[in-house]
Amino acid sequence: MSGPESTHLDFSSISPSEFFYRNRQMAGFGNPTHATYSTVRELVENSLDACEDVGRRPRVEVSLESTKSNEVIISVKDNGSGLPYDEVPSAFGQVLYGSKYGLRQKRGTFGLGVTMTVLYGQITTDSPVMIHTQHNGRGREYRLHIDIENNCPVVEEDEGRTRNENGTTVAVRIGGDLARALPRIQDYLRLTSIATPHARLILHVDNETILDTGPWVKTLPAQPTISKPHPRSADTELVRRTMVGKEAYSLNEYLIESFQQVGRKTADEVIRFLGYDPKKLVGDLTRNEIARISSVLKSYDSFNRPDSSSLSPIGREPLLGAIDGVYGPEYSFYTRRGPLEWEGHPFIIEGVIASGSAFPKREEPALYRFANRVPLLYDASDDVLTKTLKKVSWSRYGIPNGRHWAIFISFCSTRVPYQAAGKQAISNPAEIESASLALFRELGRAASKMAKKQQRSKKLQRRIREMKTSLEMIARFSANLTGFDAERAEIMAREMFQGDWP
Amino acid sequence: MSGPESTHLDFSSISPSEFFYRNRQMAGFGNPTHATYSTVRELVENSLDACEDVGRRPRVEVSLESTKSNEVIISVKDNGSGLPYDEVPSAFGQVLYGSKYGLRQKRGTFGLGVTMTVLYGQITTDSPVMIHTQHNGRGREYRLHIDIENNCPVVEEDEGRTRNENGTTVAVRIGGDLARALPRIQDYLRLTSIATPHARLILHVDNETILDTGPWVKTLPAQPTISKPHPRSADTELVRRTMVGKEAYSLNEYLIESFQQVGRKTADEVIRFLGYDPKKLVGDLTRNEIARISSVLKSYDSFNRPDSSSLSPIGREPLLGAIDGVYGPEYSFYTRRGPLEWEGHPFIIEGVIASGSAFPKREEPALYRFANRVPLLYDASDDVLTKTLKKVSWSRYGIPNGRHWAIFISFCSTRVPYQAAGKQAISNPAEIESASLALFRELGRAASKMAKKQQRSKKLQRRIREMKTSLEMIARFSANLTGFDAERAEIMAREMFQGDWP
Repeated sequence: MSGPESTHLDFSSISPSEFFYRNRQMAGFGNPTHATYSTVRELVENSLDACEDVGRRPRVEVSLESTKSNEVIISVKDNGSGLPYDEVPSAFGQVLYGSKYGLRQKRGTFGLGVTMTVLYGQITTDSPVMIHTQHNGRGREYRLHIDIENNCPVVEEDEGRTRNENGTTVAVRIGGDLARALPRIQDYLRLTSIATPHARLILHVDNETILDTGPWVKTLPAQPTISKPHPRSADTELVRRTMVGKEAYSLNEYLIESFQQVGRKTADEVIRFLGYDPKKLVGDLTRNEIARISSVLKSYDSFNRPDSSSLSPIGREPLLGAIDGVYGPEYSFYTRRGPLEWEGHPFIIEGVIASGSAFPKREEPALYRFANRVPLLYDASDDVLTKTLKKVSWSRYGIPNGRHWAIFISFCSTRVPYQAAGKQAISNPAEIESASLALFRELGRAASKMAKKQQRSKKLQRRIREMKTSLEMIARFSANLTGFDAERAEIMAREMFQGDWP
Repeated sequence: MSGPESTHLDFSSISPSEFFYRNRQMAGFGNPTHATYSTVRELVENSLDACEDVGRRPRVEVSLESTKSNEVIISVKDNGSGLPYDEVPSAFGQVLYGSKYGLRQKRGTFGLGVTMTVLYGQITTDSPVMIHTQHNGRGREYRLHIDIENNCPVVEEDEGRTRNENGTTVAVRIGGDLARALPRIQDYLRLTSIATPHARLILHVDNETILDTGPWVKTLPAQPTISKPHPRSADTELVRRTMVGKEAYSLNEYLIESFQQVGRKTADEVIRFLGYDPKKLVGDLTRNEIARISSVLKSYDSFNRPDSSSLSPIGREPLLGAIDGVYGPEYSFYTRRGPLEWEGHPFIIEGVIASGSAFPKREEPALYRFANRVPLLYDASDDVLTKTLKKVSWSRYGIPNGRHWAIFISFCSTRVPYQAAGKQAISNPAEIESASLALFRELGRAASKMAKKQQRSKKLQRRIREMKTSLEMIARFSANLTGFDAERAEIMAREMFQGDWP
């Protein structure tokens, strides 16, 4: 037995604010350029949510101002629902606090986004965040910062101030790098316009408007509905949680009540498979039985596919319309795969192949990726979509407009399987990989067909031109021979070729 | 004024456990392969800390067992300090709880690592973590899991059980992918052996020992000392915090007491620069004055460089010894840059260039990166070290052993400026970029010199061989001519060339 050892171990817990103060790179605030871009992104996504939530077409104005070197003032204004006043301090001044959305497609990370911008602003410039919000017609303006050690908001000012309309404006001053971040921010807004064709996005830099894009459609997409979890997504934690408050339910009732795609008949089958008594009460289940229920639910094949009404794909017309508006391609084609499922989560992949001079000339198409209507600008090489794209032999496909081309691919799901921390790359469940491969191939074939048609039509036009010249000559010669008016004969021949030809 | 709008916004806060349950990819647990690798890494790093903390040479045994498909049992055993019993439940069952280390070089992320393995294990296999620890001679075994919603430990079992020696064994069962993770784990352990030459690392897979590496040196490095913050690292949050409890201090006393490299004279100069009264009490400072103090401290040039005793570089002999032990190179050369400073944080970069058949043949050397003695295996392309490596025209340098070569580069600092969330890539403060560029060039020149020497020595050896053959012939001929014993003459000539030649 060894003797006593002195250690200087001293244990303590830290608040979530403190954690992200120390590990800000985890949330995309690792350096001034990232932080500038991430601040815009978090605020814009909050604004889009706030508008869509009340069925209003978003008009989001981003203003960037670089007052002194290394400092950027970022302000984002929307015409959304405004915020309930009681919630403003915590929503902006408490890390891991936010509005719940239930199980449906959503942007962003619950409870982290906007508070990180406040935290980062106060660390780097010691400035509070300004929030001017109007909810149900009464406006209010706040200035607040975060008590980092205790993870709670400190309201510095709070006064009534009316706005023209409901909505929210948030302004922060951060240690940033506008020059380096600006190209990314412009890309981000342009691509957000593609993923949100019903929104108008405006960017002002030092009081000059440098981008004003969308809307490309007049109607708002239907809001995705909140659904119950699918049984194949039920890890033991989820099973345990869905049992809380249902201790007096029979196993049967519990399954039907807690999950989608489980009716009386399916519940009976699952319970028969488990070998448990259907009348057994949830409160009487042992821990091992709960674990077994999770493992059976996850592997049971006969459930229907998860409900896809909790998804909000962009849609053919809006997506093509937005790409048209932003890039003006000469050719574009839309297709989609799904609704499909990965581990109990519904997903849809939409793709557009487009060609035209706005895109770079390349052997492989340029790839623009989106997840749940958010453009993914970083970590492309780790993404399953990028990797799958490289598996297709694009050289086999003829492409219209001399290989100036791009593919837009939009993945949506109630859960996006992000590869790693940055939420910029999708990982590779087999279902997603095979669906995207099939989708890429269909896009390739469609483009190829169009290229052939283009080729054919070029050939045809050449032959028509040749025929026209010949016929005009023949008409002139014949007229000369027969004493007819040669000029009139030529005009008549020419008129034969006017109007629409293929 | 618009009328009332119904929103279904419903606000709430979530616990840190809940946050990382939902966003596990942030901590490196995004898929079964990552999770398997991350679990090993977190447990091994905990073990190394626990040993070094009591000045014991670490012996860390990793055991991996794949009982059924998609499940891995991971157990890591060390001979460290053991854990204080009161702290075991929170240290393993509460996210954002951990042992404090003060301001010095350290591995890992405070409060996240080991609890993530527990969280992930219980979500995927519903198994508790097993911790068997012996601290000051009394052993104790725990089984516990995390109450995710409340972020607190639930101890399932807890009983006395003696071990052979102080130390800790942790075992978790996780949903993992051993086959895919194993190559990474082996790389990780091999490189950890390089970064921790004083440790012995053993890997068992399904009861077979497949790796047993180190120790390469007999002595433990000195533990880095805890230092006060350097004034150039003082953001406003840090200034505010260091003022807590010092409200009755004069500005003068506060600066001297709170920061390193600030004595009476320097404090006076800073205060003169600020234009404040040196006798002004900390408690009387306004918020704007505090912000101004931070901004002056950050930009004041005349402070001495930060104390580097809070760093623990690997060192020439240990690093060369470990590379020798693991790769057996034919040639290796060590150099370092620093202590230097980035934004008030001291840093040292050490580098070794090595060549030999163990390394791949390439135009550019293979690069092995370390930060604070942790190997960085992912995101190489984003790393400032990788980017800087590519700026060097390696083709200009001759390299011994036909360009089978590698560079090992170890960065250490009280704060590593990670690029992004995954903590696998170092970002690019100018000071780090220029120091690493200079270091790479020095390594290139050293290797080049050695290659020339090798070349020269090859030439010399050829000439000696030629001379030897000629002399032997001359000896034989002369002996024949003079009637001397030709064979003996030849042997005498040959003996002239025995022994050490260059």
